[in-house]
Amino acid sequence: MTGKVYLVGSGPGDPELLTVKAKRLIEEADVVLHDKLPGPKILDSIPEEKREDVGKRAGGEWTPQEYTNQRLVELAGQGKTVVRLKGGDPFVFGRGGEEAEHLAANEVPFEYVPGITSAIAGAGVAGIPVTHRDHVSSVTFVTGHEDPTKEESAIDWHALAETGGTLVVFMGVGKLPMYTGELLSAGMAPDTPVALVERATWPNQQVALGTLDTIVDVRDEDGIEPPAITVIGGVAATRERVLAFLENDPSDGNGE
Amino acid sequence: MTGKVYLVGSGPGDPELLTVKAKRLIEEADVVLHDKLPGPKILDSIPEEKREDVGKRAGGEWTPQEYTNQRLVELAGQGKTVVRLKGGDPFVFGRGGEEAEHLAANEVPFEYVPGITSAIAGAGVAGIPVTHRDHVSSVTFVTGHEDPTKEESAIDWHALAETGGTLVVFMGVGKLPMYTGELLSAGMAPDTPVALVERATWPNQQVALGTLDTIVDVRDEDGIEPPAITVIGGVAATRERVLAFLENDPSDGNGE
Repeated sequence: MTGKVYLVGSGPGDPELLTVKAKRLIEEADVVLHDKLPGPKILDSIPEEKREDVGKRAGGEWTPQEYTNQRLVELAGQGKTVVRLKGGDPFVFGRGGEEAEHLAANEVPFEYVPGITSAIAGAGVAGIPVTHRDHVSSVTFVTGHEDPTKEESAIDWHALAETGGTLVVFMGVGKLPMYTGELLSAGMAPDTPVALVERATWPNQQVALGTLDTIVDVRDEDGIEPPAITVIGGVAATRERVLAFLENDPSDGNGE
Repeated sequence: MTGKVYLVGSGPGDPELLTVKAKRLIEEADVVLHDKLPGPKILDSIPEEKREDVGKRAGGEWTPQEYTNQRLVELAGQGKTVVRLKGGDPFVFGRGGEEAEHLAANEVPFEYVPGITSAIAGAGVAGIPVTHRDHVSSVTFVTGHEDPTKEESAIDWHALAETGGTLVVFMGVGKLPMYTGELLSAGMAPDTPVALVERATWPNQQVALGTLDTIVDVRDEDGIEPPAITVIGGVAATRERVLAFLENDPSDGNGE
């Protein structure tokens, strides 16, 4: 009697941006394995007795991915219906790919339930469409926080600059000086608009706007902290054109 | 007495992949302006008397974007609460950016409500994570169907090949020979895995797997037709490793 694991995306944090399916599965699950990224509003709505936090362990250490993988197999082996709840989408920088492979290797049936990625929604709620027919034909998501065991960065910032498309960097607050420098040296214009969106759709959402040249200073002045996304490209300037009529305020005027 | 326009993403087509917010707004709206992309299951669930199809006009012609823009302003001017429902996410190749700018220029309050993009969900339900910690640090979405009034393609396929990340092409069934050729000539390996996912999450979903070298033949043999996404990169091979335990069947075994 094997259970089943649902790899479920929670979206960016607003409970109303859960999918109908995610909401139903959370209600029906025996156990919800989660970290902190779904955000307080969604996590608080889940009964405590079925929540299991695999984000941090006592002592402040991160739970190793191996533990989470093993725990999923263990719970399914007990016949449980398990929701593995992840911020955004499970397959976008969420290690859901590894979990899916581990489940299949251990013969555990699983389902993938997509969630809204903060790369798109975080930009959008700030009034920034990641693509625009007049300006760009592509958008690239890239992580600012690679596997620290990798010897070299696998990210070719010069190639990314040359795509001419919008770039959205996940978890890239700390390394902002590094990659804005790389993009400038690749020939991207210093006045390319750049936006930082912190805690998109959370009640304490913050948005800061600058250019490739100024955004590091803007980040420091505005006190932007992780988790945040960085949106680089002409589309970031759309915010200024639409903000007066944009009613996406999670709190008090897009945090500004 | 101005109304309000909600630019709402419907997700890939499964009604359970609507967000809780999209579902509520559709219920509360006076008018739902839509085209065909939300798919039959979602459209059929909306009462006919409040649906307005701006996808096609009599005679089989497409409704010009200008008409849709103008109609949104007109309805809001009548005090209506309008949902502009779009397949996937409104700001990912959905012309939502143009609509947002038009609304703001006409002083119409609006809100953006993200939807699940088929680029991520379409790959995921086929067992393909668009990113994977072991293989790739970026994913790029690109449209295979640019503005036909543009003189030259704005897409630099060589730069995209050089990012080393996953590529997901929207609406790229017809031009598959063109861009697989471009990617090969840019030096991408002929055995790079490629997947086509047609009508992701719809009851008649179809998935076809090949390589950069074989995918055009695979497309023809399997009869893959639009709408579909193309997923290019090492991650596409994940499908084979997980398929036996993947239970994402919209119908009868992922359409195969």
